[in-house]
Amino acid sequence: MEYPSKLIEDAVNEVSKLPGIGKKTALRLVLHLIKENENKTLALTESLNKLRTQIKFCKTCHNISDDDECAICRSHRRDKTIICVVEDSNDVMAIENTSQYSGIYHVLGGVISPMNGVGPSELKIESLVSRLSDKQCEVKEVILALSPTMEGDTTAFYINRKLKDLHVKVTSIARGISVGSELEYSDEITLGRSITGRTLFD
Amino acid sequence: MEYPSKLIEDAVNEVSKLPGIGKKTALRLVLHLIKENENKTLALTESLNKLRTQIKFCKTCHNISDDDECAICRSHRRDKTIICVVEDSNDVMAIENTSQYSGIYHVLGGVISPMNGVGPSELKIESLVSRLSDKQCEVKEVILALSPTMEGDTTAFYINRKLKDLHVKVTSIARGISVGSELEYSDEITLGRSITGRTLFD
Repeated sequence: MEYPSKLIEDAVNEVSKLPGIGKKTALRLVLHLIKENENKTLALTESLNKLRTQIKFCKTCHNISDDDECAICRSHRRDKTIICVVEDSNDVMAIENTSQYSGIYHVLGGVISPMNGVGPSELKIESLVSRLSDKQCEVKEVILALSPTMEGDTTAFYINRKLKDLHVKVTSIARGISVGSELEYSDEITLGRSITGRTLFD
Repeated sequence: MEYPSKLIEDAVNEVSKLPGIGKKTALRLVLHLIKENENKTLALTESLNKLRTQIKFCKTCHNISDDDECAICRSHRRDKTIICVVEDSNDVMAIENTSQYSGIYHVLGGVISPMNGVGPSELKIESLVSRLSDKQCEVKEVILALSPTMEGDTTAFYINRKLKDLHVKVTSIARGISVGSELEYSDEITLGRSITGRTLFD
């Protein structure tokens, strides 16, 4: 594709580096910005710059935060005896949205993935261990809420082994048929797990 | 959705103002930027700021340009006797990519759309008329390359009427079955037009 201007070409190249955005979508976005008022572009870029330069991470749970400690860790209403271990900040948001969890979190910042060069040392696993090893720690249960992928399972397995000697209950979120989905269309592994992991009918 | 940080919320709001990007996609993009190196975000925002503040439009054809006159209008290789009228700069790019056209362009900057408050005066139609009225103008043919929508057709009709007294040939791009598509799946209006607009078999 030949662009009428070097500025367009540069902007398209930068925008298309974002995940899920190809050259065509990038061009559409860039042409949209040109059509709109200049202030809109400046507001967009300023908010992104501010975000990237001013964002902080909670020193305890490593979740995204406005301060050194996040609102969840600071809160007195949260149950400090349960820690939910998740891959990323968006998992925290997803779980918070369910309103079903009142404990605290630990954000790993990824999952073990040798293919992508991510080993255990790249993740906040040691930080989790030291958090639990602390004398003042009241945590009784660690919920592993990782994606049911090979990487997620490997990470869960690794963490479980690391926490073995800490006398803390380690649980995993339930795997089963999604609510609203048809039984016959679910894959055999999920269906199998939903049978072995069956619960009492209430 | 509750966000863990005001910075995230602001950035998501700004990004989701872009066309075709909802809150979920915006959040995904924003979290991606946080994970990446700070320089990548700065490169992105700088290219967008530069684009929006430094972009120019060709004074002749109103296409996006690095200078006061675009590369196509400046070129001595282009046929100055044919003007192709298009809605937007991306239409120029699309036509240039076909390598089938060697004339010059005129970018309207939109189409007549009373629903969206776009009247003929918002478009570069007067500029086209004055371009063609110029004594030194060599243009013999005006190709209307507008989308076959109601707005596009209305705009084509309006321009055709405006150019009536200028003794210039006004043509429209062919409407018909897309290359590679199945006859039986094309809609009846397109199929009808492809029959009335049939050409000699060569």
